[in-house]
Amino acid sequence: MAGLGDREKTGDRDKTQDDAAPAEDGFGLSRDQIEAVRAALDDEEAARGAETARALVLRLHYADQADLVQSLPAEDRRALIGALKGAFDPEILPELDDYVRDEVIETLGYQDLAQALAELDSDDALYVVAQLDEAEQAAVLERLPVATRALIEQGLSLPEYSAGRLMQRELVAVPAYWSVGETLDYLRSAPRLPEDFHEIYVVDPRHRPVGQLRLSTLLRSQRSIRLRDIMDAEMPPLSTTADQGEVARLFRDRNLMSAPVIDVSGRLVGRITVDDVLDVIEEEAEDDMLRLAGVAEVDLYRAVVDTVKARASWLGVNLITAILASLVIGLFEATLQSIVALAVLMPIVASMGGNAGTQALTVAVRSLATKELTPSNAWRIIGKEFLVGILNGVVFAVLIGAIAWIWFDRPEIGLIIAAAMVINLAVAGLSGIVIPLALERMRIDPAIASAVFLTTITDVVGFFAFLGLASLFLMP
Amino acid sequence: MAGLGDREKTGDRDKTQDDAAPAEDGFGLSRDQIEAVRAALDDEEAARGAETARALVLRLHYADQADLVQSLPAEDRRALIGALKGAFDPEILPELDDYVRDEVIETLGYQDLAQALAELDSDDALYVVAQLDEAEQAAVLERLPVATRALIEQGLSLPEYSAGRLMQRELVAVPAYWSVGETLDYLRSAPRLPEDFHEIYVVDPRHRPVGQLRLSTLLRSQRSIRLRDIMDAEMPPLSTTADQGEVARLFRDRNLMSAPVIDVSGRLVGRITVDDVLDVIEEEAEDDMLRLAGVAEVDLYRAVVDTVKARASWLGVNLITAILASLVIGLFEATLQSIVALAVLMPIVASMGGNAGTQALTVAVRSLATKELTPSNAWRIIGKEFLVGILNGVVFAVLIGAIAWIWFDRPEIGLIIAAAMVINLAVAGLSGIVIPLALERMRIDPAIASAVFLTTITDVVGFFAFLGLASLFLMP
Repeated sequence: MAGLGDREKTGDRDKTQDDAAPAEDGFGLSRDQIEAVRAALDDEEAARGAETARALVLRLHYADQADLVQSLPAEDRRALIGALKGAFDPEILPELDDYVRDEVIETLGYQDLAQALAELDSDDALYVVAQLDEAEQAAVLERLPVATRALIEQGLSLPEYSAGRLMQRELVAVPAYWSVGETLDYLRSAPRLPEDFHEIYVVDPRHRPVGQLRLSTLLRSQRSIRLRDIMDAEMPPLSTTADQGEVARLFRDRNLMSAPVIDVSGRLVGRITVDDVLDVIEEEAEDDMLRLAGVAEVDLYRAVVDTVKARASWLGVNLITAILASLVIGLFEATLQSIVALAVLMPIVASMGGNAGTQALTVAVRSLATKELTPSNAWRIIGKEFLVGILNGVVFAVLIGAIAWIWFDRPEIGLIIAAAMVINLAVAGLSGIVIPLALERMRIDPAIASAVFLTTITDVVGFFAFLGLASLFLMP
Repeated sequence: MAGLGDREKTGDRDKTQDDAAPAEDGFGLSRDQIEAVRAALDDEEAARGAETARALVLRLHYADQADLVQSLPAEDRRALIGALKGAFDPEILPELDDYVRDEVIETLGYQDLAQALAELDSDDALYVVAQLDEAEQAAVLERLPVATRALIEQGLSLPEYSAGRLMQRELVAVPAYWSVGETLDYLRSAPRLPEDFHEIYVVDPRHRPVGQLRLSTLLRSQRSIRLRDIMDAEMPPLSTTADQGEVARLFRDRNLMSAPVIDVSGRLVGRITVDDVLDVIEEEAEDDMLRLAGVAEVDLYRAVVDTVKARASWLGVNLITAILASLVIGLFEATLQSIVALAVLMPIVASMGGNAGTQALTVAVRSLATKELTPSNAWRIIGKEFLVGILNGVVFAVLIGAIAWIWFDRPEIGLIIAAAMVINLAVAGLSGIVIPLALERMRIDPAIASAVFLTTITDVVGFFAFLGLASLFLMP
């Protein structure tokens, strides 16, 4: 594997990591590093062990420290957080999974947590506080410096998953009548500017954004030019209440590097940069996948009992679906008793319908999420999926028909399973696209509810078509 | 819905779009806009219609133009590309789905395509050419300017999905011994610099990157300081052959804005910026989801026959799985004939196993992709999933046991289905985590193959446990 390779050839910048071998791809955490820390924490002489572990961890990038904290068993994790006391890097907190973060915060205590939050960027601190429950939030907030506390409380008042929760408040804004020279002088000498900024925002006298300007453009323009003559006025200002998914899609579609955020009165209150959007994009795609499978989130670190509870609700719904299918089968007890071959073959039609439907469904759910599937092309895609279902139905009808005929040496059973296959795969294709479209229309998340409806339909239709046709044509 | 709202309050910057209502969320394409273009293209007087359509389209952002081209039926699409002749925005090309792009390129012709490519950034041009088949590539390449052609051929020689395919070659590199003042003067006056850059790379005499520097840092430093004293030396240089997924993970974990790319000799050859990574991140998560469902990609715009073929292979594999399950059922024909209630109930155990297994499987596939699930915590998670399976097995065993007892008024059937449920859900939990781990170990993509193995196991075990226990205890 090439990995991120070729690192060894680029000099000796990473001497510090030499004694613990890095992961095989050259970045991130290696198993050896994790084992070294665990070994240190298991040291009989606790103080010495803690000191060694601390030294091993502190040389890592904060993202790797977070990975390490995450991969340790709960006991070792507590021991490590204890060992890091005073040197705990606040940047670790936003990187952790919710369950692990709760544990870490418990070990840290509110006082240390408040101190860590005060050191973070406004958006990261807000994110961490937002994940706490109300009592914890109150306990932390009262320990924060007044200014930080006010910013976080303001952020918490905005809707979850809104642009306001994502934005950084640190930005550079200058008036439109300034010249390039004035602006450059300001940037050079102003005492308090964000540590890192790639663009400056141009505002009108009411602090409403009227344009933005890249530093590279500013640098390469003549000093006498007015900002309003070179600024980019086409940036989309986002409202603090805009949905994060919409924001992410906009960044992706327009290839934006950053966008200003305005409050209800149109005033510039923050900026969102593309790196803030990475997590949103990944989570949106991931959430669809998890919801389709009936899990709410990646619950790797969640306790067993909580996981059982979280997954049981989905299994409960599926039990009802399965019982419904059994009720349909129950209608044909007499037929099954007289031709037991039907019982042997009947799961095939239902299972193929479920699979074909899931294919159409997954494409539909994903296309709805990315807004590729819209009211303007819905009918065309519905027609297409129906046709795809019929055609694949015919293909597999011929196959399974021949197999069933040979297996039970009864051509009529082959014909009946073939007919049922075409019916069920056509219905599956149609349901796979119509169900998510209908749910979306009713403002229900298609990723959550579609799969249940789909399997109910493909099971019921699958068993009913097969056993019904058999009763009609094979029973005296 | 708040959408990206509040736009109307922020001034009158978008007058140009006023006559065709924008989409409900304030950005992107509205249905009215699409309809207006379609109406124009259907105009009886073709020349006038083309002129109107062209005017309507050209005022849109290129991302919206791409969306529009995509949502049109094939005929209208060809008509529109014809109408845009000469004013076709090259930026549209990388935004299109593969199927649509192929059509557009066919309508454009190689000469116009070559011209469009020459106007694109190197990474975008490479991406478009890489999607063509070999004959098309040759036809386009020979029509390109020599320099562009060389760059693209060099890019094509790199592995697909590598950092080299993702990087832009346009960048700013300066020697480490320069002072801030020299650098600023160079940036201000150098005739050919990239249109947009957020950081400059500091290189040694052999053009190997030794650090990077944000423009904001440069601007705020004293002119006499040497770059080597203020540059950030901790940036990770990526190899051109590094896997894009790894690159994306690194950007996400380390919250990077950009990273330099080096060739085998360690020379700086390009840069990857975080916006290039957005698509990779989304596609990685999306691909897992699609593969689990047995579709290779979002095939919304793919022709019916191609879609049928692409999906049939997965359905074929599933047919084999289903027949395997039927063979297991076939072992118990005698039992089914004497107790038909078993035929009615048997799909329940298999179906619940499939669902519980899919929950564990989806979490595992996703965690493997994000490297949260690693050899160091695998055993712990395996134990957890097994336990979760047993516990949910017990919960649903009690439920279905009671239901079956009441339904058929035979307590022994209730007991048998309950026992089968515990067995199958425990096996499902275990398989859901072990299968993807084993596949990953064998370097087979767990997202592609896991689901088939899982349903085979949960079906076979589900039917075998239920019917086997019934034969053992209920048959004379």
